[in-house]
Amino acid sequence: MGLLDNALDNIEKIDESLFVKAQERLDSLTKPRGSLGRLEEFARQMVAITGELRPVINKKIIFTFAGDHGVADEGVSAFPKEVTPQMVINFLQGGAGINVLARHGGVEVVVVDIGVDFDFGSLDIDLSKLKSKKVVNGTGNIRKGPAMTPEETIRSIEVGIELAGEYASEGIIFGTGEMGIANTTPSSALISAFSGRRPVEVTGHGTGITDEAFAHKVKVIEDALALNKPNNKDPLDVLGKVGGTEIAGITGLILGAAARRLPVVIDGFISTAGALVAYELCPTVKDYLFAAHRSVEKGHEVMLDHMGLRPIVDLDLRLGEGTGAAIAMGLVEAGLKIYNEMATFGDAGVSEEA
Amino acid sequence: MGLLDNALDNIEKIDESLFVKAQERLDSLTKPRGSLGRLEEFARQMVAITGELRPVINKKIIFTFAGDHGVADEGVSAFPKEVTPQMVINFLQGGAGINVLARHGGVEVVVVDIGVDFDFGSLDIDLSKLKSKKVVNGTGNIRKGPAMTPEETIRSIEVGIELAGEYASEGIIFGTGEMGIANTTPSSALISAFSGRRPVEVTGHGTGITDEAFAHKVKVIEDALALNKPNNKDPLDVLGKVGGTEIAGITGLILGAAARRLPVVIDGFISTAGALVAYELCPTVKDYLFAAHRSVEKGHEVMLDHMGLRPIVDLDLRLGEGTGAAIAMGLVEAGLKIYNEMATFGDAGVSEEA
Repeated sequence: MGLLDNALDNIEKIDESLFVKAQERLDSLTKPRGSLGRLEEFARQMVAITGELRPVINKKIIFTFAGDHGVADEGVSAFPKEVTPQMVINFLQGGAGINVLARHGGVEVVVVDIGVDFDFGSLDIDLSKLKSKKVVNGTGNIRKGPAMTPEETIRSIEVGIELAGEYASEGIIFGTGEMGIANTTPSSALISAFSGRRPVEVTGHGTGITDEAFAHKVKVIEDALALNKPNNKDPLDVLGKVGGTEIAGITGLILGAAARRLPVVIDGFISTAGALVAYELCPTVKDYLFAAHRSVEKGHEVMLDHMGLRPIVDLDLRLGEGTGAAIAMGLVEAGLKIYNEMATFGDAGVSEEA
Repeated sequence: MGLLDNALDNIEKIDESLFVKAQERLDSLTKPRGSLGRLEEFARQMVAITGELRPVINKKIIFTFAGDHGVADEGVSAFPKEVTPQMVINFLQGGAGINVLARHGGVEVVVVDIGVDFDFGSLDIDLSKLKSKKVVNGTGNIRKGPAMTPEETIRSIEVGIELAGEYASEGIIFGTGEMGIANTTPSSALISAFSGRRPVEVTGHGTGITDEAFAHKVKVIEDALALNKPNNKDPLDVLGKVGGTEIAGITGLILGAAARRLPVVIDGFISTAGALVAYELCPTVKDYLFAAHRSVEKGHEVMLDHMGLRPIVDLDLRLGEGTGAAIAMGLVEAGLKIYNEMATFGDAGVSEEA
């Protein structure tokens, strides 16, 4: 059995009776019942995910998957394609948004080259922090054919599953992130294919394109869907035809984490597209997910609603990289600390409600 | 000139031209313009508040003001009045929600006894961390008369102004919090008086009272307003007649901080009532405020809208103590770190948008 089938076989529903047990403890703490709102919800979910009555977070890791997209040739992004490897180098040198927010939140960033169209080995820089898992040198242009072959698609998912296994440890929480110039285009194509909504309804302005470029981007997505005819009853077909390597890596990370009962905080638009593919393969993965934030990018809410996920923060973010996940992980951790560290009414000698 | 008049005299509008300068730097960083949304907004505001082109946060302090309320005798809270001093002791021992979230965020908590109806000196516990600034042993019952005399009102505000001065230092950011059984009742009375809305429109379920108790609470507030007839053209009259010491302390802290160009993150419902009084005394204080979160408590949004403040998070919190401020301070700090620590396009050798 392959890694993917094995992961799918091992994903089990969380034990919802643990929500009740967790709430009993939350209600014994020195605060009005339910008064810490979603922080309490995060604690309950962490208890149910881990199956531990007193779980802790020992380590926070964000995987930033980087991959290139042939469709960048169609001029769908405000940035040139060489920015993908340039930003990977920026990640390795600690100067990007994700690095700053990860340092702020005590999060480790693992940068994964899963499909960048660049040979990092040709550079005279320290690559010890780069996880080399390259499946392709960029995907195919989805306006002219499929993004990936079925084999490349599976392999990209397996990269994520392997990383979940390699980094799995007691008390770990994963976050997802990505970098890939033009990657809102395949993400919108995926959402359109799965939801049946027209591309214009689920496409946004990405890194900041003009209205004219936006109309062109929508046309490119329409063309890509018409040409590739992805079968939305077959998530792997959709992912391979109009997706991308970093999206597939995120899908795999989520499946691998859920199979090991590990929580995953998904970042914004592109990460959620990766989560959507995982959800289409196995809706139960949803139990293991925290949605970091409500992205400005159109189409994000369609996915969150479809999976029944409520975003943790709403800060008008649209950068990706895992920046929203870095922030939200700290709030999930805050909820768990409330659960573990607050005094009970009994311990503190505080009178309970009448 | 008294402390209050002196503070009011020293509050100046922030220099909005600094928003433009701050945005220029933000736009030079390796990310699409504006893509970090509100994190960028927080950085701009910190630049304009401090007047520094590269401000940093060196220290985060939350003042948790504790005071009792005579109106607790009317049965408006789900908790008995003795919980106020019990929770103060819990704060000092590190077991309350604010302690957990402050530790998580690297925030110092200063607990201020500004009006608790209890003699902490009678206990055999370490009080070195308690700031004793007691103005009264609890306020008067607002259903039977004014909460405070005009002198007590001024003195309570001065306590906050004094604390702002005592703790002022380079790179400090303040947060507000409070503890006082029954204190949503005077807060709703204040909002009703200032906004002209009926008590039922701006009153919530506080710590979690029943619908029957809620109807009673609304009646108590209506009675208090009818009896005391606060003059909403005179913010000190409103604060004294239907407010409370901890609310006044928060008002003072905000005025004192604004007079020194220091930022303040206001917590939820009660803290925002304190901010509203400061705003009514001097609308310019708004420039120095960050609204931590959108409280579940009805009436909170009325105040935020009135002052033109947009809350940072929305996590269904209704605990108070400064818990929302502890979370939001970390996000303001994250915005400032983005501003200070990210690489520029030039430094990182990343191509800019076309």
